[in-house]
Amino acid sequence: MSTAVSPLAPKSQPKMPPIEGVRIATAEAGIKYKGRTDLLAMVFDAGTQVAGVFTRSKCPSAPVDLCRANLPGGSARMLVVNSGNANAFTGKKGRATTEATAQAASSAAGCASSEVFLASTGVIGEPLDPAKFTHLLADMAKRAEPALWPEAGKAIMTTDTYPKYATQTVLLGETLVTINGIAKGAGMIAPDMATMLSFVATDAPIAAPVLQELLSKGTAKTFNAVTVDSDTSTSDTLLLFATGAAAKRGAPRIDDAKDPRLQSFRRALNKILKNLALQVVRDGEGARKEVEVTVTGAKSARSAKKIALSIANSPLVKTAVAGEDANWGRVVMAVGKAGEPADRDRLSVWFGDIRVAHEGERDPAYSEAETSAYMKKDRIRVRADIGLGRGKATVWTCDLTKEYVAINGDYRS
Amino acid sequence: MSTAVSPLAPKSQPKMPPIEGVRIATAEAGIKYKGRTDLLAMVFDAGTQVAGVFTRSKCPSAPVDLCRANLPGGSARMLVVNSGNANAFTGKKGRATTEATAQAASSAAGCASSEVFLASTGVIGEPLDPAKFTHLLADMAKRAEPALWPEAGKAIMTTDTYPKYATQTVLLGETLVTINGIAKGAGMIAPDMATMLSFVATDAPIAAPVLQELLSKGTAKTFNAVTVDSDTSTSDTLLLFATGAAAKRGAPRIDDAKDPRLQSFRRALNKILKNLALQVVRDGEGARKEVEVTVTGAKSARSAKKIALSIANSPLVKTAVAGEDANWGRVVMAVGKAGEPADRDRLSVWFGDIRVAHEGERDPAYSEAETSAYMKKDRIRVRADIGLGRGKATVWTCDLTKEYVAINGDYRS
Repeated sequence: MSTAVSPLAPKSQPKMPPIEGVRIATAEAGIKYKGRTDLLAMVFDAGTQVAGVFTRSKCPSAPVDLCRANLPGGSARMLVVNSGNANAFTGKKGRATTEATAQAASSAAGCASSEVFLASTGVIGEPLDPAKFTHLLADMAKRAEPALWPEAGKAIMTTDTYPKYATQTVLLGETLVTINGIAKGAGMIAPDMATMLSFVATDAPIAAPVLQELLSKGTAKTFNAVTVDSDTSTSDTLLLFATGAAAKRGAPRIDDAKDPRLQSFRRALNKILKNLALQVVRDGEGARKEVEVTVTGAKSARSAKKIALSIANSPLVKTAVAGEDANWGRVVMAVGKAGEPADRDRLSVWFGDIRVAHEGERDPAYSEAETSAYMKKDRIRVRADIGLGRGKATVWTCDLTKEYVAINGDYRS
Repeated sequence: MSTAVSPLAPKSQPKMPPIEGVRIATAEAGIKYKGRTDLLAMVFDAGTQVAGVFTRSKCPSAPVDLCRANLPGGSARMLVVNSGNANAFTGKKGRATTEATAQAASSAAGCASSEVFLASTGVIGEPLDPAKFTHLLADMAKRAEPALWPEAGKAIMTTDTYPKYATQTVLLGETLVTINGIAKGAGMIAPDMATMLSFVATDAPIAAPVLQELLSKGTAKTFNAVTVDSDTSTSDTLLLFATGAAAKRGAPRIDDAKDPRLQSFRRALNKILKNLALQVVRDGEGARKEVEVTVTGAKSARSAKKIALSIANSPLVKTAVAGEDANWGRVVMAVGKAGEPADRDRLSVWFGDIRVAHEGERDPAYSEAETSAYMKKDRIRVRADIGLGRGKATVWTCDLTKEYVAINGDYRS
């Protein structure tokens, strides 16, 4: 595996302010990694509301099952995340582990076990022994403190080459509220698989059903619009916690997703989700280039997204980008295979602002030299206009390099 | 690009007998390649019936358009195939080229232009100048002879590392008939794309509608069950020609797909299609291992095939095979993401005959050493039993190696 930091990593990390009502602790449980933290606990004040979205895999991990079961309660007091073992495809043992962890966490935080949320990332198929870390939770809950967001981002990394943070401060009514988010990305060591975890918290007083609507809509154009290799994890988990602590400072309680006062908050939340999602793409295995794929003129937005994902997941498009090859023929191929309405003779393709194909053939003004120069950039924009309607979508991916094959093909050691 | 022959190439090539009623010529037209043949003509006796299946791409090549237009006539007298240029996404120029070629071929063979079939493979988006080769067709039609099947296989190669042949001799009624097939596979040089071409001919007297039914059914479990990289070409073409010459030797004329005398012929044809399809997989870019993926116990055969393709197209499964890593967790992941009915706790997975996972967790008898030894083989069988029904499907693919990325990421020279 590669240990060098991705060339696409952010030049600097944001300063993560505390979120009132959220306390954080990390620990070295030694689940798989040595000499680094691999356990994260977040403790939430009473009254914290929660929303979540999860993998659509038919083979979800045991922690995903537990989160799904606890989510309808809408209330969260403790989050426990471990790296190094995904507790996925572990049968009854996996469930026993999540039950034991929820039990230990509920004692530690003094809450119901239905107010505990869990996530695990790492090797799958390997039983996760709860005895390795449950004894640490009581002490973690006691010593947890608000300022440790940077440590939280580090404890959940697997083969990520950098921790991923985002923060926004925004007016709710006339009160400033803060939103913090962390994520881990598509890091893999055989036999791990890409597990995308992200946790977002705010002090805004927003009810769980409203949070859920914000989160479900917000992911469509952010986390659900990125792809590293088309492989969906068993463990994808995105949780949003709202402590409500800003109510004491005058922030209005929001119980209706249509409340106009939510507008700025929604925008800020979506910025965080998009920022974290793009950081995940930029840290895709072996990634050297970020690729933004926009499809316009499709029959519908849904159709546009399907075509965009067909382009973004095409190994031929991704290897061409890795090779800095302005191979627009492969974009045409990926449009053609998407199974969505398309008409060869109305199709146009751009790399950046350079139109390379128009109305079913190479653009008469096509310049190989100009396009090749563009392909040398770190960030490549591909656009396909289908010419049939007004459907539009943008998705993000990274290139496919030999390093990806090396990271995922090297034998387990 | 790699020029070494695939390690999965057949140890020996079959002797290809002539097919009565088919004459073959090849030529060096210099369309793109130098010092090798790049033009193939097959001339068929009057009365030859034809069937075809083509890419489902919404951006098909101009020759695919022409074949689709001529197919309803059911009659074929000449096939012209060039390598080095796919004549795809070439707009009106592309159509002018196919019309000029069909015109020249019809004069050469003394037939209607609707009895001409064309295929092109190679670079896309680059206009194909018919003047480069149409003047050769008259001479080719004149000098064409039956024994040149080996030359036919070579003239259609692009970056294939070996030509692909298959032949069967089988009883139709009480008369021996012969079926020959050639194919070109997933060879790519930037900016080419995978173009799968295959041509099959027989002397059996079988009517076009019957041929079409045999071909459409036969491809489902052969050509439509192989995948190298999930990218569908703009040019995929499979044509089946029946000269009917065996009728003179007593073979019965078959006008009904339900004719019981077709049974052996159907089996032999399917063997040819499967043989050629597997040769294409074994010559996938960078391939070092063939992978057979079987899904059993799915809700339906359609569902089984979708899950099998999800496994076979997963970059994580394919890199694990390349790394000789018995990473069954990635098979579980691919089952989970397929979007088909599946139940984690009923799922079992085998590598070869070794059951590695059972009922939602690692098999209690799992042996890392035994499974790792199996993964060193050239030919890997993966099986997933979904445990929900009786749907079954098998598909074939190859591993994903650094060589694939090199072949497709190297800049156009």
